[in-house]
Amino acid sequence: MKINVKTVQRFSLYRRLLLEFQPEEDRERIFSYELASLAGNTAAQVRRDFMVLGYTGCTSKGYETHRLVESIAAVLDSEEGQKVAIVGTGHLGKAVIDFFRDRRPKLTIVMGFDVKPDRVDCTIHGCPVFHADRIEELVREEEISLGILTLPVEASQAAAEALVRGGVRGIANFAPVRLHLPPDIHVEELDMTTYLETVAYFARVREAPSDDADDLLL
Amino acid sequence: MKINVKTVQRFSLYRRLLLEFQPEEDRERIFSYELASLAGNTAAQVRRDFMVLGYTGCTSKGYETHRLVESIAAVLDSEEGQKVAIVGTGHLGKAVIDFFRDRRPKLTIVMGFDVKPDRVDCTIHGCPVFHADRIEELVREEEISLGILTLPVEASQAAAEALVRGGVRGIANFAPVRLHLPPDIHVEELDMTTYLETVAYFARVREAPSDDADDLLL
Repeated sequence: MKINVKTVQRFSLYRRLLLEFQPEEDRERIFSYELASLAGNTAAQVRRDFMVLGYTGCTSKGYETHRLVESIAAVLDSEEGQKVAIVGTGHLGKAVIDFFRDRRPKLTIVMGFDVKPDRVDCTIHGCPVFHADRIEELVREEEISLGILTLPVEASQAAAEALVRGGVRGIANFAPVRLHLPPDIHVEELDMTTYLETVAYFARVREAPSDDADDLLL
Repeated sequence: MKINVKTVQRFSLYRRLLLEFQPEEDRERIFSYELASLAGNTAAQVRRDFMVLGYTGCTSKGYETHRLVESIAAVLDSEEGQKVAIVGTGHLGKAVIDFFRDRRPKLTIVMGFDVKPDRVDCTIHGCPVFHADRIEELVREEEISLGILTLPVEASQAAAEALVRGGVRGIANFAPVRLHLPPDIHVEELDMTTYLETVAYFARVREAPSDDADDLLL
């Protein structure tokens, strides 16, 4: 089954909302319009998305929330889990390591890399930090498939290349720079400037953004 | 002129790419297909976007890069600038303050807020940090229009409400939780989990994502 980027992002959001929703409300079922309302989406979109996963709810009773969560996990998670390496352990790197600690059992940041002597050979929340010279070697040895770059712009391309030589297949890049990598490496850019500029624009025009449901997922 | 979220995000990306492109290449002109290639976009989309701004390039010579940057600034930037407050000055908050220092002259993080005694009444890269009890008062006094939340989930809603009471119109939220705010407040969620889950999915299926140009802007 091939799913596009937006659909994957919606599933990720649905799961977060369902996990938030469940404990508080002690609800075993949820209607598509309820989930749509939480997601800033349409009920039709929600139903379409879960049909892709082969799960259709019951019109009168809604979806079973635990089955929704399971069917999302079947797509988003790999059974054996995926290991992640982070390059750059300054404030942003530390925040990201802390953020992902115990958040998703199938995605674990297993090591960090840096070049600064006072950061190398330390551990951050139990995550060991090695010298960036060892990226390729250790990524290969530990069979790490994902990388996160929390580095200055000028250091990001070389770090990305080392990760890829070690066997990484996907990179989340926080540096505001476009990486040049083989086309089979999936890169997601997370540019904080774009977020803040978007907020700034709409705060100024003081209007709700267009109602296009997909917009809300950006 | 009303522009939707995706278009604003594309303009933000174009500007970043043009600013990167200019100094290196010493190029005064750029063709729509070149900018599209940098943006992971189509030439038709680029031309459509700049037509919205009333700037049409010359087919044989392309666009003047400085005029593109100026026409983007006319939309994204307010003349007098917009002030930003950040709530939460842990590692993530510090990283965000550092990231935005001198990045965009029209968007300035003028103060931070926190509750921890060892963080209050300090400055971070010249940005003063006050106790969160004073959010409403100081945001109003300083006419701050934008907020950034770099807080744990459980503290985010109260901080957002204090910002809004002080007069903030837009919020960039790093906490993975949906805020409940009046509909005229623009909120952008930046959920790092979604980014990493998207990377993890495509790294696993080892396929380039769908060719839908808009996907690349997510």
